[in-house]
Amino acid sequence: MSYAIKVDGKVKLQDISTTKHNGIEEDDAREQTGRLGKELEELQELMFAAGTHGLLIVLQGRDTAGKDGTIRGLSRYINIQGCHVKGFKVPTSEELAHDFLWRVHPHAPAKGLVSIFNRSHYEDVLVVRVHELVPEKVWKKRYDQINEFEQLLAQNNTIIVKICLNISLEEQEKRLMAREEKVAKAWKLSVGDWKEREFADAYTEAYNDALTKCDGDHAPWYIVPADHKWYRDLAVTEILVETLKPYKDDWLRDLEARGEEAKAELAAYRQSLETK
Amino acid sequence: MSYAIKVDGKVKLQDISTTKHNGIEEDDAREQTGRLGKELEELQELMFAAGTHGLLIVLQGRDTAGKDGTIRGLSRYINIQGCHVKGFKVPTSEELAHDFLWRVHPHAPAKGLVSIFNRSHYEDVLVVRVHELVPEKVWKKRYDQINEFEQLLAQNNTIIVKICLNISLEEQEKRLMAREEKVAKAWKLSVGDWKEREFADAYTEAYNDALTKCDGDHAPWYIVPADHKWYRDLAVTEILVETLKPYKDDWLRDLEARGEEAKAELAAYRQSLETK
Repeated sequence: MSYAIKVDGKVKLQDISTTKHNGIEEDDAREQTGRLGKELEELQELMFAAGTHGLLIVLQGRDTAGKDGTIRGLSRYINIQGCHVKGFKVPTSEELAHDFLWRVHPHAPAKGLVSIFNRSHYEDVLVVRVHELVPEKVWKKRYDQINEFEQLLAQNNTIIVKICLNISLEEQEKRLMAREEKVAKAWKLSVGDWKEREFADAYTEAYNDALTKCDGDHAPWYIVPADHKWYRDLAVTEILVETLKPYKDDWLRDLEARGEEAKAELAAYRQSLETK
Repeated sequence: MSYAIKVDGKVKLQDISTTKHNGIEEDDAREQTGRLGKELEELQELMFAAGTHGLLIVLQGRDTAGKDGTIRGLSRYINIQGCHVKGFKVPTSEELAHDFLWRVHPHAPAKGLVSIFNRSHYEDVLVVRVHELVPEKVWKKRYDQINEFEQLLAQNNTIIVKICLNISLEEQEKRLMAREEKVAKAWKLSVGDWKEREFADAYTEAYNDALTKCDGDHAPWYIVPADHKWYRDLAVTEILVETLKPYKDDWLRDLEARGEEAKAELAAYRQSLETK
């Protein structure tokens, strides 16, 4: 993995670059993203056809970090058939009457399919913690609960990739200002986004804990420097390709076996027609 | 509309060309599809942002007609965030215990979103009729029931487009044979597809009734000559652009109004900070 930062041990997001671009320039990055995108397209098709594994992509990041933009970027390569994007917003009263994973579980990917979570169950240890929406003793238990939930999914052949888009507060301010200038973006304006900036440090602390406590081989966290959109898209596409590639040979083998089975069935059918 | 055939009056699918390509050659068609695709991309983004209308795309067609391929083609232009593809397969026992629209209704698009149905409630007057899975007096009522259901969706600002991919039996045979040659496609092989060919005429009759009885201004049917994949993609993309374009100015106005509202809110917030 050349562009994202794999979490390893204790995370201090405040010390991690939001602009690191590893020597690569914009034009090269875009070209490389295109190449990796084609590879991703093929890998998804293979995963869909093999039908043995699902892929769960968790996207987190501060307001304006580029979650929507990342999904738009992936859209160029991911077949909409076989992919489900689920945004998790403020919970409804029915959702709040259940445990915090109740609304999340139904959107886990079936085998063969991709689910992209735009925000996720991690909000329940982020915004919920920052604004004290539940008592500390409740949210403190959630790190273990999340780990067990993700373990369950992983043991059922769900490939899990968790991505934290990391932007600076300066870049965030620029992006919020830009929304005021463009009519096409003005609808995204929200006083809430500005108010949340007052809690930036508390969010950093909450992110650090979530990234540190909920990282594992079965559900790794990646931190993506996200001040440059073109770099972000490259890093995310690379993460996905690198994550899926190790499964490729198995999927091809499964596919071949399924094809042979189907051909045998067809041959038997044809013979039955001839002997009629 | 230059490439698809809008249903108008009584349909006789057997008399409608499956290869008609309206003088256009493959290279020009691909280029035009790309141009229209970009327009579609913008229109979807606008629809998403405006949030006043949903779009329901119903895809029907015989086996191998290219429903999956059409969706893959649209994937290049449609943002996966805001689009939901739902395939309707053989109903489960729970689904069969309900009316035939029960499993369909939850997948109607919310405002701002796109739903693509890969097969749909029309199967309940197609395969169900051809194989007499319910008595005639039951499926006969379904044309009216479908019309009323689609009317309900349309009256709630759902833009409905129904597309019948029309291929010849010769092209179908070629495609079925091709699946035996390519490992990557062999998993799609099914004895069922060959058996269904024996019912080709019954399907034509069932399609003719569905297209004729369930066509309306609020939910028009389009027939797309689908023997050439590149022509099919062009025709489908054009249908979608032509369908959405008339809403563009309204959506822009809505968007502008929402932006102004958000800006006013923001200004009030800023003033409140200053007077603190």
